[in-house]
Amino acid sequence: MHIFDSDTALAEKESRIFDGTVSGNWLVNGNPNGGYLMAIAARAMLLHADRRSTPIVTANYIARSAPGPVQVRVEEISRSKQFNRFEARMFQDGKETIRALGTFADEKIDCRVERYETRAPGMPPVEDCVRVPALPKFTLLDNLDMRLDPACAGWMQGKLADRSEQRGWIRFTQERPFDLPGIFLAADALPPAVFVSQGIAAWVPTIELTVNIRNLPQTEWLRCALRTRFITCGLLEADGEVWDGEGNLIAISRQIAQFRTAG
Amino acid sequence: MHIFDSDTALAEKESRIFDGTVSGNWLVNGNPNGGYLMAIAARAMLLHADRRSTPIVTANYIARSAPGPVQVRVEEISRSKQFNRFEARMFQDGKETIRALGTFADEKIDCRVERYETRAPGMPPVEDCVRVPALPKFTLLDNLDMRLDPACAGWMQGKLADRSEQRGWIRFTQERPFDLPGIFLAADALPPAVFVSQGIAAWVPTIELTVNIRNLPQTEWLRCALRTRFITCGLLEADGEVWDGEGNLIAISRQIAQFRTAG
Repeated sequence: MHIFDSDTALAEKESRIFDGTVSGNWLVNGNPNGGYLMAIAARAMLLHADRRSTPIVTANYIARSAPGPVQVRVEEISRSKQFNRFEARMFQDGKETIRALGTFADEKIDCRVERYETRAPGMPPVEDCVRVPALPKFTLLDNLDMRLDPACAGWMQGKLADRSEQRGWIRFTQERPFDLPGIFLAADALPPAVFVSQGIAAWVPTIELTVNIRNLPQTEWLRCALRTRFITCGLLEADGEVWDGEGNLIAISRQIAQFRTAG
Repeated sequence: MHIFDSDTALAEKESRIFDGTVSGNWLVNGNPNGGYLMAIAARAMLLHADRRSTPIVTANYIARSAPGPVQVRVEEISRSKQFNRFEARMFQDGKETIRALGTFADEKIDCRVERYETRAPGMPPVEDCVRVPALPKFTLLDNLDMRLDPACAGWMQGKLADRSEQRGWIRFTQERPFDLPGIFLAADALPPAVFVSQGIAAWVPTIELTVNIRNLPQTEWLRCALRTRFITCGLLEADGEVWDGEGNLIAISRQIAQFRTAG
């Protein structure tokens, strides 16, 4: 079994109450990645969904998560001809850590209009990009192979830029296609966009993350971009796009995070 | 009392259970505007919040709302040094119509870094813009004075454009400053961005709307923009910005909506 599948596995203990484990394999600076946690919540909702297409999941990160046991409680909010909606709540040590809302659409919804007004973010081919090196408290980087556009990678050497944007390619280190849970992980995997302009002294804990998946990818590598435009009053947004290598839009995301600096 | 205040007024019946009324004064094609409904939910959360700054509210529109009595039930999810978080649920005739998550920040949060990487959307002065005329089932337009940038207003005469973007000025028809509830209304008030490229045959019921307010406006008129980039599989996103007339960012929004056409 792929490490991502075992690390998001759930056992249904009672109806709609799942036991799982937050693994230490997807850490960013010692904390479980928010997209990885969303993948666990989404997997629990998908286990009860009778529609599974183009999910919209919004997670509120209420309290710190840590590697260890997790319980996921799923409530079905509504079921219509087109949508199945859920709320999922994650608990560790009896404390609620995440509350998420999820909407899953019917596979048969009309797709007559397919319209992109912007294209996939431009970036050099994988082999010309810069691999983000693994670090002790960043186990995510052992399990995702991430190659940044050199134009956005200066922050790794302390060279800052004016535009808070990350662009890069992502695949699983151990080969695995990106299915729905995997896309939630990928949507939140790039380093914070503000690192590019503000350096790694910035600390950006996520308050809320929304991911809307539009298509399943046709390629192993995903092309990802993340952009912050407004830092005000201790908050910022980070708007993400995930594309496949053939120019299909896979997902869009937005997170609102705190902006803190060590200074 | 201003019509918007009476139309969002709530009476606390039991602890955290509020009675209110969905008014017929904020209709769009016969349906209560989503931002207006969010304002009611946000007002209920604000009545219990001990922090009130820079709200992030995400509402899921589960079932059709209609003018008439509404009950709002508020749950406090968490209260930390920095944030107060709530869930608000709206019910009409015993049926849940909206479920919303709200995060409210402490007023004293560090604002040392204030950084805009893009400026307010360009548009002509108010007097050179095109007033959106009131129509029988669009009572919102009686109560909000909305002036569209002529470059985006061709759809009102059936002249379509390539770029799905609305830009325009908004104020209350009857003078009133935009406070937090008012900003939720303004963030969802522009006509759908896809009208500009697809015409008014498009129908875009909101699935989920997120609004993050960053500042209170210093001017009566707000400068608003709304942009759709991707229509795929019956879904689209609409990303909004609200600015004041002095170039302060007031709010950002994202909604995911269905995309349907009459054809």
